[in-house]
Amino acid sequence: MRNDVAYNEYSGEVLDQLADGGAFLTVKVGDKINTMAIGWGSIGYMWGKPVLTIMVRYSRHTYDLLEKAGEFTVSLPKTDQLKKELLFCGRNSGREVDKFKECSLTLLEGKKVATPVIKECTLHFECKTIYRQVMEPGLLDPEIQEDCYKNHDYHRFYIGEIIASYRTA
Amino acid sequence: MRNDVAYNEYSGEVLDQLADGGAFLTVKVGDKINTMAIGWGSIGYMWGKPVLTIMVRYSRHTYDLLEKAGEFTVSLPKTDQLKKELLFCGRNSGREVDKFKECSLTLLEGKKVATPVIKECTLHFECKTIYRQVMEPGLLDPEIQEDCYKNHDYHRFYIGEIIASYRTA
Repeated sequence: MRNDVAYNEYSGEVLDQLADGGAFLTVKVGDKINTMAIGWGSIGYMWGKPVLTIMVRYSRHTYDLLEKAGEFTVSLPKTDQLKKELLFCGRNSGREVDKFKECSLTLLEGKKVATPVIKECTLHFECKTIYRQVMEPGLLDPEIQEDCYKNHDYHRFYIGEIIASYRTA
Repeated sequence: MRNDVAYNEYSGEVLDQLADGGAFLTVKVGDKINTMAIGWGSIGYMWGKPVLTIMVRYSRHTYDLLEKAGEFTVSLPKTDQLKKELLFCGRNSGREVDKFKECSLTLLEGKKVATPVIKECTLHFECKTIYRQVMEPGLLDPEIQEDCYKNHDYHRFYIGEIIASYRTA
């Protein structure tokens, strides 16, 4: 463990949950807060720091917010929990609905960042964005291009330094 | 676990070893084979595939090789093993020395790729490069810029789909 932040011991759980259920990515700009479901990401150690890499498509409300925010949180439910809520948050846009109200999700104040975490989840990561980059479509495997980006709605990568990680409940 | 490839169950070990010892990144182009030490990277689930993200600086011999190769392998020693060899492979260039000979490292044929793994290691990942990208210095946290890139020798990111992962010995 480095930087007094837990990440390696949670990594298996993070990767399992991303692939088999998903996590909530929460972003706050001023008084606007939104959360979305993510199923893809990485956990690592880069530049001597524990990091989470997330991917957000241009079309997303979260993309607009992340471009203005310098931080984000990722909250994971227990296995097989909040599946309905993750599905709703993945299929609907925060531009049109209040996901917290619709899904009865509540917010818990972040410990190290101004962005809250999702109270109904049990594992949380608070991240400061230290790098962000658009995808270069021409550098991507053609099969992935065909499978994931037929509509040209590419992802932007955000690498966040994990500055707090903890379990609740 | 997805795609019948182990990654989440190895992730804690990978992140520990990257931060506290390092791993060997091996690349092969034609009859040229080189290995280098890496201490930074990520393990994740992106585009529905298990992935390893590695970072290689422009100045590296491995960078030249990776640009021509479509694959790479990452081999991890047991904790506290091969520290001298990792240090040597991190400090010397394959352009000038035969690291395998100097470090008495031997090669083991890859199971799914043409690139070998390091026989003296015990955990191996065979990867197919599915995305690669240069860093955009202007999008990086200024503190990291100052700490890691004073000489402008930036990293290039390579995301490899993990197509085989296994223990030996």
